[in-house]
Amino acid sequence: MNEIKIFSPATVANVACGFDVLGFCLNELGDDMIVRKTQEKGLKINHIEGFPLPLEVHKNVAGVSALALYEHATPNCGFEIEIYKRIKPGSGVGSSAASAAGSVYAINELLGTPYDKTQLTEFAMKGEALASSCEHADNIAPCIFGGFTLVKSNNPLMVLQLPTPSNLYATIIHPQIEIKTSEARKLLPIDIPLSKASQQWANLGGLIHALHTNDYKLMQACLEDVIIEPFRKQCIPYFDDAKTAAIANGALGCAISGSGPAIFALSKSLETAKRVERALEAVYSSTTIAFHTYVSSISHQGIKTLKQR
Amino acid sequence: MNEIKIFSPATVANVACGFDVLGFCLNELGDDMIVRKTQEKGLKINHIEGFPLPLEVHKNVAGVSALALYEHATPNCGFEIEIYKRIKPGSGVGSSAASAAGSVYAINELLGTPYDKTQLTEFAMKGEALASSCEHADNIAPCIFGGFTLVKSNNPLMVLQLPTPSNLYATIIHPQIEIKTSEARKLLPIDIPLSKASQQWANLGGLIHALHTNDYKLMQACLEDVIIEPFRKQCIPYFDDAKTAAIANGALGCAISGSGPAIFALSKSLETAKRVERALEAVYSSTTIAFHTYVSSISHQGIKTLKQR
Repeated sequence: MNEIKIFSPATVANVACGFDVLGFCLNELGDDMIVRKTQEKGLKINHIEGFPLPLEVHKNVAGVSALALYEHATPNCGFEIEIYKRIKPGSGVGSSAASAAGSVYAINELLGTPYDKTQLTEFAMKGEALASSCEHADNIAPCIFGGFTLVKSNNPLMVLQLPTPSNLYATIIHPQIEIKTSEARKLLPIDIPLSKASQQWANLGGLIHALHTNDYKLMQACLEDVIIEPFRKQCIPYFDDAKTAAIANGALGCAISGSGPAIFALSKSLETAKRVERALEAVYSSTTIAFHTYVSSISHQGIKTLKQR
Repeated sequence: MNEIKIFSPATVANVACGFDVLGFCLNELGDDMIVRKTQEKGLKINHIEGFPLPLEVHKNVAGVSALALYEHATPNCGFEIEIYKRIKPGSGVGSSAASAAGSVYAINELLGTPYDKTQLTEFAMKGEALASSCEHADNIAPCIFGGFTLVKSNNPLMVLQLPTPSNLYATIIHPQIEIKTSEARKLLPIDIPLSKASQQWANLGGLIHALHTNDYKLMQACLEDVIIEPFRKQCIPYFDDAKTAAIANGALGCAISGSGPAIFALSKSLETAKRVERALEAVYSSTTIAFHTYVSSISHQGIKTLKQR
């Protein structure tokens, strides 16, 4: 194999009650990437479409993660990368994770898959660190593993694949305001009340039990963020209105996606997810803020190979 | 039915990573209680054996919880309660919870089970509040439901029954020092670092996934308390030595049971649990602190009816 075209999906991190550890993978939104072997050693990003991102390998998250793998594998060839970006950087649905994970997935395939998914996640975390100034895997893990994932620990990296109910659908609204992950992290408190923390871990524990038992009523009770949302929602105008509208229209839960500004809702059917989409559109239509919306099933697969030759 | 004899088991709360929300039920250690209907209305505690506890209904946790149910049910009879206590009060394995849960379970049976397990837990929490100065269900829930339980929320009370791997065994050592739950709570910080909190909720999430998937290696990785143990272990002499010995002898994890001073370890087989027991005995044998040890399987049933007539 000399060339591979892949689809690297958008992801939702935190998922209300799982700050820094929980995430899930979307089916409908993502970037395409083409990676091909070159005789000349080294890495090159020779084309980026969609958004203005640096072509320099060291300044591009896909480049940095690819380099981490490349330097570890020391193969007898080089690679050139084309990025067809559809996930807007800074939107809160894992744009940098899709780039970072996509390049390492593709190169691993071209090398005959010497690395497993956990190792790929580790390489991709190097790219993620460039975007958000700290290594974290809560978007990368669902991008690479698919479905719902729990990052049990970063060091050693331990990613758990959770069951993913098949009729769960996500609605995403992306208000066109910019929040940088590194800035969003600065808003967070260093310390939190123990009483709130125990409420949060009961919610996360309950959500994981709900995913195992297909208990949608329990998911609904657990999709609640008592720690982070009160701080971060201040950066997202009309967040409370959006959340209220989503819940009123049947969503199981609605919260900030990653560090925002995107907002996600989870629903038990495609029909409900679309109704929630219309409700979210209605909230932002009456404001001056531009927005995009998406409805997507949960991807069980993560990154997909589209073509290879 | 006019009289019932029940076994109300000891329980382990917190279970390392689930402060205030997680617990499991022991098979081998517990109290017996006999409750019988009386023509005269009202409640009486007419006999207590084992430990010196108040016979006054309002001052006894079994009395207070029974009264909560009794006043709700307003039956046309009264009840008298005998308590044969084997779980030492203040030991950290749910002594007050066993009393509080036992009396409401027994009266509910004598009334033809008008209440479900969640309602019984609510009544029992009134008794628990007398012992620890706050209503909590992390010992009562496993006592009434059996197995591992997660208290997802107190208000409304929502108890989740988690899967309980059948070859999991607990070793308990109870160093004979006294720590009151209400005092132990005062040791705890009001605020905790967000970074530690997210580590803790990853551990709890991982443990619940491990219980669902029978993944003992993952249980081992998740049975870790980075929040509470550093504070509470200061009250338990030789805790670090005990923990080190338990892990060195094959325990999956070892932590403070409830608010202590009892220490529990979980092991994958009875043989390992007994080896861990000998290791814990060895630690405290070389000190001046008296102790008791127990090895027990996890009770899937919770409170058991022993006799009825």
